[in-house]
Amino acid sequence: MQFTFVTLFPNLIEGYFKDSILKRAIEKGILKIDYCNPRDYSKNKHFKVDDTAVGGGAGMVMNPQPLFDALDDLKNRDEDVHIVFMTPVAKAFVQNDAKRLAKKSHVAFVSGRYEGIDERVIEKYADEVFSIGDYILTGGELASLVICDATSRNIEGVLGNAESLETESFETPLLEAPSFSKPKIYDSLSVPSEYLKGNHSKIRSLKLALSECKTKYFRPNELKKHKAEQHLS
Amino acid sequence: MQFTFVTLFPNLIEGYFKDSILKRAIEKGILKIDYCNPRDYSKNKHFKVDDTAVGGGAGMVMNPQPLFDALDDLKNRDEDVHIVFMTPVAKAFVQNDAKRLAKKSHVAFVSGRYEGIDERVIEKYADEVFSIGDYILTGGELASLVICDATSRNIEGVLGNAESLETESFETPLLEAPSFSKPKIYDSLSVPSEYLKGNHSKIRSLKLALSECKTKYFRPNELKKHKAEQHLS
Repeated sequence: MQFTFVTLFPNLIEGYFKDSILKRAIEKGILKIDYCNPRDYSKNKHFKVDDTAVGGGAGMVMNPQPLFDALDDLKNRDEDVHIVFMTPVAKAFVQNDAKRLAKKSHVAFVSGRYEGIDERVIEKYADEVFSIGDYILTGGELASLVICDATSRNIEGVLGNAESLETESFETPLLEAPSFSKPKIYDSLSVPSEYLKGNHSKIRSLKLALSECKTKYFRPNELKKHKAEQHLS
Repeated sequence: MQFTFVTLFPNLIEGYFKDSILKRAIEKGILKIDYCNPRDYSKNKHFKVDDTAVGGGAGMVMNPQPLFDALDDLKNRDEDVHIVFMTPVAKAFVQNDAKRLAKKSHVAFVSGRYEGIDERVIEKYADEVFSIGDYILTGGELASLVICDATSRNIEGVLGNAESLETESFETPLLEAPSFSKPKIYDSLSVPSEYLKGNHSKIRSLKLALSECKTKYFRPNELKKHKAEQHLS
């Protein structure tokens, strides 16, 4: 699968692929990462890519021309490219989107900087627009990395032995139970005793109870939905 | 303000500070970025930092010992350090948290990898635990960068002239209206005509109507809350 980052600052992104799971996936040929800088497409003699906002307002807005030309070029080279914009004003990106995007052959992320991107670019080119959460970032680059990372780990072969897709938070409506490693007692803090006794059906019940507890606390609406579905089935 | 990244993979993070707004803030001395690798604290002869999960379950879990020692060292060096963990099982990080964290002198982010961190570490050291959204990442590194970035731009002096804190999404309960740049017509697509006429009170009304529209579509509950508050005041 290919990811293309359309960004004025590819150097903010490149470092994230230099180690760990995604580096291995690139080396194995499962992932291909590419960059496209709108500045390279600017027809302005100073390679300017932004201007003041029409109708007033603080800050600079990214111009249509460099992005139109960059995205036309991208689409000419691969008509199957799925173009994603990230803005705080969009639907929330969730785990199911990560699984869905993992089935595409090529996803391109268009990162805004400054006060954002001229809305005409989004209207013309967006296959999808996501918000990764209700907070504001200095640009779209981290949001694109978040979506790329969450998507990548759902592609077959990306996760190695040390990681696992099974019984994860959001794969079921319940959040995951706490994990414990060795030693069983460290600095006088013990792993819950039930975890140590080795009765797997009892451990499963305890983990389910802990999951329900955490979900009730952090995502009360999800727990209600889960209980309602259990009641119906 | 200081940020310390407690991570097995500092090289995944470093690149993000090599350009643009945060690089400038570091050069101006407003931000200081530091790293702390739990592997450097491992007492295992092979510098191992993880082990299988107690009580069964797939994947490896990060051991208490290297993290206990790393975090003790961090607290000994600065008793004011505010320690943040990122897991999908936590309250959602939102814009108000970014503003609140921006007032601290030192925030440390502890990134998990593999199946996560032994819960005893979180129970002992966490001042706060955040989820940046309902999706799963290969590790906590991107989540820590997201919180660091969103926090940093609320520190005085970090944003330059090209950026702005005014009338942003989440600063008011309404999402931001679309932005447009020059030219007024590009590729036969025009900026909304009201934006061009220069009547600022009409532009303000249109932007408010567009904001309400976007909020109604993407965050219906927020709009209801906003209307209720207006009704009360």
